[in-house]
This record gives sequence, C-alpha cells and structure tokens, in this order.
Amino acid sequence: MPAHHATTPDPPRRRADAERSIARILDAAVDALAGDPEASMAQVARQAGVVRATIYVHFPTREALLEAVTHRAIAEVARVIDAAEPDRGPPAEALGRVVTETWRTLGRYHALVAVNTEQHGAEALRDRHASVLDKLHPLIERGQADGSFRSDVPVAWHLSMLLALMHAAGAELGAGRIGEADAGPALAATILGALA
Amino acid sequence: MPAHHATTPDPPRRRADAERSIARILDAAVDALAGDPEASMAQVARQAGVVRATIYVHFPTREALLEAVTHRAIAEVARVIDAAEPDRGPPAEALGRVVTETWRTLGRYHALVAVNTEQHGAEALRDRHASVLDKLHPLIERGQADGSFRSDVPVAWHLSMLLALMHAAGAELGAGRIGEADAGPALAATILGALA
Repeated sequence: MPAHHATTPDPPRRRADAERSIARILDAAVDALAGDPEASMAQVARQAGVVRATIYVHFPTREALLEAVTHRAIAEVARVIDAAEPDRGPPAEALGRVVTETWRTLGRYHALVAVNTEQHGAEALRDRHASVLDKLHPLIERGQADGSFRSDVPVAWHLSMLLALMHAAGAELGAGRIGEADAGPALAATILGALA
Repeated sequence: MPAHHATTPDPPRRRADAERSIARILDAAVDALAGDPEASMAQVARQAGVVRATIYVHFPTREALLEAVTHRAIAEVARVIDAAEPDRGPPAEALGRVVTETWRTLGRYHALVAVNTEQHGAEALRDRHASVLDKLHPLIERGQADGSFRSDVPVAWHLSMLLALMHAAGAELGAGRIGEADAGPALAATILGALA
C-alpha cells in the first residue's frame, strides 16, 4: 500500500480507495471465474492480492460478488452498444456492428455468462439483460419497418432469440466446438439470418 | 382398482400394472408441472390419483421423477423426429417439417423444459438432448452439402443454435409474449433463417 495510507485520508480519497479496491476485486473475480467457474472467495482474494476479509467488507456473500460482477459486465456491454451506434446506417449493418462489438466485449465474460445461465431461468436472464435489450429495441423496430427484419413476430421475440443465440455461441466457444476467430462472424451471420 | 387385482397376479401382469402406474405418474407430473413448475410430489400424487407412497416406490426423490419425465419426453421427441422423416426431400423443407412437429410435441412440455433449463447449464442440456440432436446431424450435413445451410460453421454449431432457439421460443410462449398459433411458424422461420 502507498505511504499516504498511513496518514488519515480525507473522505474523497477514502472513497476513491474503496472504489479502486472494489474494481480490483471485480476484475479478479472475472479472471478467477474464467479459470474456474466454481472459484471460491478465497481464490478471488488470492487473484486480487487482498485478504479474504477485504472482499467480505464489500461483498458479504459469493452470490453478492457474482451479482456485482454481472451488473458491471452488463453495464459495460450497454456502453459498448451505445458506442457501436445502433441508430446509424442500414439496420442489418447496424445490428452486425452491435453484435460484433458486443461479442468482442463478452470475450472476457464467457465463464460468467455460463455461471449465470446455469443459475437463472430464461425469464430471470431476460430481466437482467433488460437494460441492454432496451437499447436494441429501436434498431429492431427500424429494421422491421424497412423490411430488413421479419415483422410477423414481436420485437420481444427477436430480442429473446438474439440473447439466446449470444449465450449459445458462448457455450459453443467454451466447449471448444468452434474457434475464437470463427465464433464472432458465425454468430453475426446466425443472428442476422434468424431475424431476416 | 379393477377386481382382478384382488387375485394374485402373475408376474407379467404385475409388470404391466407397474408400467401403467409409472406412466400414470409421469403423465400426472407433466400436468402438475404445467400448472405449477414447483409442483411437489404430493401435488403429483393428487394429480395421478395415487397416494404419495406409490410415487416413492418408483421415484425415491422429486429429482428422480423429473429425470424420468425428461427422459420420456426426449424419447417422445426422438420418435416424432423419426416420423417427420428428416431424410426426405429438400433439407430446408425437411428441417421445417421436423421443427414444426417437434414444437407441436413440446406443447405439453414447455413447463418441463423451463424447469430443466433453469437447473442445468448449456453443456448438460446439450448432453441430455444428444439422442435427439444426433438424429438431426445427417440432415444438417445434407443441407450443408447442397448449400441450403451455411457450411462455414460446424454441424454442432447449427444444432446448438437450433436447441437454443427451441428453448427460447418456449420461454416466449410461457411468458405470453407470443401466442400459441404464431409461435410455431415464427420458430420455424427463425431457425431456418439462422441456419441458411
């Protein structure tokens, strides 16, 4: 720890320290889960280079830690979707861009997705992804309006299929049935085909 | 109970009775789960018109009962796929036929599928469906060979996406986001698009 910790820190500094500590724990949790989906709090602590008690200060249970990691990952995906500009250009092209960028981001999180998929039913998963799916809603509507996407099903159908395909692709990659370089393009083609 | 039960039944008769009893319990379990995915052994017994002890004779735990129900449902789907003749006619047409018939059969089992999806990860689900997916393997290969289905991905990818879309469609129907009459055709179109 840096020397200034020995002096009494002012509250903003203390808050910043806590935030950094939380970020380090969440990063460590992502890495630990990637190595072992059953990773314990002790393994996460080791990975983060902190004592276990430090983790428990912020996350009283492993479940709470998983929730926080998931929440942060979904928020990251939401930012990535915004950056991919879903409202720009032809709908199929825009969706291809969004899927490719999202998939790239998910690269770090496949193990986390697998853990979540195993622990929650379809409805709970959909609820968790509401903030992300909401961002795609206007794009799907736009594509239905101009004939790029099928309009004989509700927008919700397309969004659920997209989510299911994303997660299934992660499982294929995790099981080694497809290579990392092939999975992204295959996923984009599969999703665009499913919606067209 | 019929009167002949009062006499000492010969072993084949006893076996037939046991099989009928098991079938009645499995049917009741399917119906009870459809009404309440958390249905207890007591609810299943009530539905089957037997005392709880009779169920426990055949299924020592609720988990064992769910396994048996799942096993029987998947065997039923396998028979339905055979009857739909996946090897007959153009691959896209054959797959459309198989999907439509499978979906019709799944009508009884959406709650069971939801329970299973909630309890097992993607790999475990895929393993459980191996007997069914194996039946579709030659059809997907045939479609890849004649250009009906994309051949830049392994057959396993197409099969996993198909399974994921089937289950996601069941969830959409269960959540009431699509009607029963629309779900089947929408699913067939989505799957054919995803593979094309």
